[in-house]
Formats: sequence, structure tokens, C-alpha cells
Amino acid sequence: MPQNQQILLDNRPQGEASASNFKTITSETPALQDGQVLVRHHFLSLDPYMRGRMNDAKSYAAPQPLGKVMQGGTAGEVVESRHPKFQPGDKVVGMGGWQLYSVVDANAPGSLRKVDTTHVPLSHYLGAVGMPGVTAWYGLTQVIEPKAGQTLVVSAASGAVGSAVGVLAKARGCRAVGVAGGPDKCRYVTEELGFDACIDYKAHADAVALSKALADVCPDGVDGYFENVGGMVTDAVMLRTNPFARIAVCGMIAGYDGKPIPMAYPQLILTNRMKVQGFIVSEHMEVWPEALKELGQLVGSGRLRPRESVAQGLDAAPEAFLGMLKGRNFGKQLVKLA
Amino acid sequence: MPQNQQILLDNRPQGEASASNFKTITSETPALQDGQVLVRHHFLSLDPYMRGRMNDAKSYAAPQPLGKVMQGGTAGEVVESRHPKFQPGDKVVGMGGWQLYSVVDANAPGSLRKVDTTHVPLSHYLGAVGMPGVTAWYGLTQVIEPKAGQTLVVSAASGAVGSAVGVLAKARGCRAVGVAGGPDKCRYVTEELGFDACIDYKAHADAVALSKALADVCPDGVDGYFENVGGMVTDAVMLRTNPFARIAVCGMIAGYDGKPIPMAYPQLILTNRMKVQGFIVSEHMEVWPEALKELGQLVGSGRLRPRESVAQGLDAAPEAFLGMLKGRNFGKQLVKLA
Repeated sequence: MPQNQQILLDNRPQGEASASNFKTITSETPALQDGQVLVRHHFLSLDPYMRGRMNDAKSYAAPQPLGKVMQGGTAGEVVESRHPKFQPGDKVVGMGGWQLYSVVDANAPGSLRKVDTTHVPLSHYLGAVGMPGVTAWYGLTQVIEPKAGQTLVVSAASGAVGSAVGVLAKARGCRAVGVAGGPDKCRYVTEELGFDACIDYKAHADAVALSKALADVCPDGVDGYFENVGGMVTDAVMLRTNPFARIAVCGMIAGYDGKPIPMAYPQLILTNRMKVQGFIVSEHMEVWPEALKELGQLVGSGRLRPRESVAQGLDAAPEAFLGMLKGRNFGKQLVKLA
Repeated sequence: MPQNQQILLDNRPQGEASASNFKTITSETPALQDGQVLVRHHFLSLDPYMRGRMNDAKSYAAPQPLGKVMQGGTAGEVVESRHPKFQPGDKVVGMGGWQLYSVVDANAPGSLRKVDTTHVPLSHYLGAVGMPGVTAWYGLTQVIEPKAGQTLVVSAASGAVGSAVGVLAKARGCRAVGVAGGPDKCRYVTEELGFDACIDYKAHADAVALSKALADVCPDGVDGYFENVGGMVTDAVMLRTNPFARIAVCGMIAGYDGKPIPMAYPQLILTNRMKVQGFIVSEHMEVWPEALKELGQLVGSGRLRPRESVAQGLDAAPEAFLGMLKGRNFGKQLVKLA
């Protein structure tokens, strides 16, 4: 059996996460039991939700256990199989974690999914045609429920989730306005993803200034907001909401280190009769097939062109992860493992 | 025609509202045109929403115009009628405003409603069996949608809206927990209204302390919160929410003077996959008949025993209104006019 490399959570962050929270070990991959499959990971997905799980706090998911392999989505190839449905060479997606190989009990529902890489590159199954894409699809269609002609704002618009939100919104006849950090990301959002506009939040000192910039590109106000960040961007968008606006709360990355991120104007929820709703896409598995179908078509046809930041090798994973939490990635953050 | 007395909005508040924002004038009631009805007001309703309308700010309702009679709900008696459906002596409810008499165009839909005072005292049609009661009914049944056995928290629990929320929740098999200001109000909430518990927010220095007190009386967490106040109470309740909790945002009286009332922990909307929704009952007229029927039965059977604070005479209206904004009233705030 091949030699495995694994990254464990060694200790929990106090405030900001750091590389010292992680530990790398080497081990043998165990021999397969009946029903098991050995997968060699080609890509590891790095996602903001992982930061939340590093805390030992009540949250929607159990905390990442200490001393165990960091959990995470992986895309790879079957190298050995004792399960009739999987053959060596099959491309598969699963939750293999921060390691080079995983042994998967393929009988467990949802543990391993074969994917077709004819029209969609393998890595995109961890992004636009995977969990982040379905997250975008769910928040947009099930929480925001936009109508053609309405204006939607998306924060972290160049990211794996945000980019899909905008393209899905455009496909529904909406005006899509992004918020992103820096001119390069904003250019990608408008020129490559086809958003109608994108605001660089780093160019604005506070929520009121950002809100004024939003007013210029949202002449009819804001009907829906896809929330990935929290804090000042939320406040700025809320100041522009129309009556009956909907906010899909998908992430609040600004608060993941424990920093307070108060919402400045909750009274707007009343005066604008807004709906603000949080969701976790893994609790809505029933929508995945429909969502993945649309996302696969958008990627296959070139309407959704996902950007990727790819770190090289497992050792690079912690720094890539910490950089993503600070917005240093551009698009979906991956680690190439093979 | 009788001599009328009217209170106008003379100027808009800067920060806190004060008696000097109002002006009283005397006038003749005009002669009736065809289709009009002259109503002598017995009771004027004072409600927190009026404070919002005194500002010249974008909100769900147009601002109260300067120099015009303050708008408000009234219950009274027809004294003269040129409309076939109304006879002198009829008891009626409408939006007569802060004045002794109103001339109503009875053909305008919803302008005047005859009420039956056999089992329900006239004044209650401005409270438990009127707009505040329907507000409670709507927020509870249409936004919170509680299930039997769930725990609901209501702020301003002794008020016109809050008291009805609790009784309606108990009727649905829920645990009802109130938050109110002072031991007298808390005693009324538990002993007369039948809430399971009531917390005196004035006995707690901050949201964390209040939250601990809530934990004691909400051993299974909080599944629904009926929001009337905003600020510290909101934060305290949010810290106790269960997954999939719903918040019906009906009022945020703490912020009506323009004071900031940030929501401290918006990230809980995500981690608990909450729904936070604002509403205005006047936009949901379709539910009024069903709601008023249940509320009338609860009052008629003595299960809902509304408290009233009754100020005497139109001149007392401004001080009674300002006192209500500070929580000095106990139950529904009315002004007796005849």
C-alpha cells in the first residue's frame, strides 16, 4: 500500500488561525476491507466553513476533532477497489480530508460519487459543480427567490460561491452586482463572469461610503443579497434594500476569528419587511441533482468560467487556507495533490 | 355641528419625541356630505408605530404630515349618518385620529367597521381584538409558525401585542416566556395571562446576564421570538436560539428615537439557520377575519384578559404617548375621549 501524508488539527486557534494549529504526519494506508475503495486525491478543496469547525463552539457542524485528519472535500481517482461499483481509474469526489489518500467505505450513502470529466474538469467538481455551486444555487433560488428584473448583490463575488450566484442570477434575468476586494477581482467579476457591476470594498472606508457606491450601481435599490462576509458590507447593502428584500446568509467570514461583527441597522428588517435567512447546503441534499445539472450546463457551455487558485502539494495547504480567510485567493481555493 | 378638538403634529422630533412636537386646536366639525358619517370618539389608541411616522424618514408608511391631525385608531359611536349602512348609536372602529370627532367617508373600503360590544368591551377593539391583536396573530402564526411543545419568547410581553402573542402561543401548546419591565408587569404576564415564565429585563445589566436568566426558564432553548423592542433583549434571546429558530420582527421600539441598536450576534442567523422576518400587519388584510375571530373568542372566554392604561381626555394624549414609548404604560395604552 502507498505511503500516506496527512494534516491533522493539532490545537485550536485562539483568535486568528495560524499554521501552528496544524500538524503533518506520515502513515501507511491500511489494507482494504470488503466494500472499501482506495482513492488517490488529485485536489483538496479549501473552504471558509473549515475555519468555523476549528473552533470548539456550538455550531451547525460538530467541531473538527483534535488529533484527527482535517476534514475536507477531495476529488481524485480510484486506485484500488473492493466495491463492485468502483473500478481503478474512476474519477470520484468525496470527503477525503487533508491527505494524499483516503480509504472510503463506498457503501455509506453519499461517501463517494463518480464524476464525468468529459466536459467539466475534475477540479470544478469541488467548486462550481460541487458544494460551493450548490450553495449558490440553494441560497439564490430557495431563499432569495429572485424575479427577473430584480437587483441582487453578492459579496465575495469572485469566490467559488459568489461567482456562481451572479451567473445563476443573470440566467434568471436579474441585475447582478458584486462586491469584491481589489480591482483585479472586480474586473474578473464583470468581464469574465458577466456581472453588471462590481464594487471594490477595499476602496471605501466605511459602510456609509460603500453604501453610496452601491447606490450608483443599484439605481432601483437591492431586492436580494447573498451574504458571504458580514460586517461592513452587510450594513452597506442593507441601507440600499427595497421593501421585501431577502438576504440569504451563507457565510460571515468576517466573524470567523471571533471578532464581533454587529449588524448596524437591524431595524431595516422591520421597516423594509425583509426576510433574513441562514442555511447550510448539506441539509438540503434533495436539491443537489437539480442544482448540479444547471451548474454543469453553465460550466460546460462556458457561461460560468470559474477561477481557481491552486496551491501545490499538501504541505502548502495550511498557508493557502489561511490566505483564503484573508481573501488572498482568487476564485476557488484548491490544493493540487497529484 | 359639535365643536371639535384636534391634536396636530406641529414639528418633527430631534431625537426623543416631546410634548412640544404636538399642537392642539379647536375647530367646527363640517356638515356631512352624502355617504359621510360623523363619529364621536370614545377611545383613541396610542401605538408605538406612531413614533416612527413622526420622523420624516423612509419607512413602510408615509410620514405623518406636519400640520395635520395625528393619525391613529379610534373606537366610538355614530352620532349622525348620511350613509345607509350606519345609524346613530352604532359602535364603530376606524382611523379617526387624535381628535374628538371625525367625519368619515363610509364608502371607502375599511374606513369604518361596526363592532358588537355584547361580549367584548368597545376599547378592546383597539387592542386585543383589533390591530395589536391581529399583529400578534400574524407574527406568531405566519412568521414563527410554532409547533406544540416549542418555546416562544415575547418581548414587551405585557403590552397589547405581546400579551396576545403569549395567549395565542399557549393555545397552540407552546411554552410561552415573556420579557417585560418590572415585577408588576412580570406578575401580570404569568398570573393573569398564563405565560410559563417572565423575565424582568430591568433586573439584568446586559445581554449576557439577561441571556443567563433566559436559559433558566427556557431549558430546551428558544424556537421562536416575537420581537417588539430590539437591542439588548434581542441579543439575549438570540444567544438562546435553537437551530431553525424564527424571529418575527414586529417592532424595535428601542431604536425609534434614532439611537443605534446594533444586533450583536448576526452570525447566529447562519449557525442556527434562523429566519428573521419583518412584517406590517396592514399589508395582510386577508388574515384579519380569521385572526379577529380567534382573538374575540379568547377575550370573550376570559382566556385573554387585556390590561389597559387609560389616560383621561384628549389633552392627556401627548404625555400618555411619550410615557408609552418609555414603557410607563401597563398593557394597551388608550385615551378616553367620551
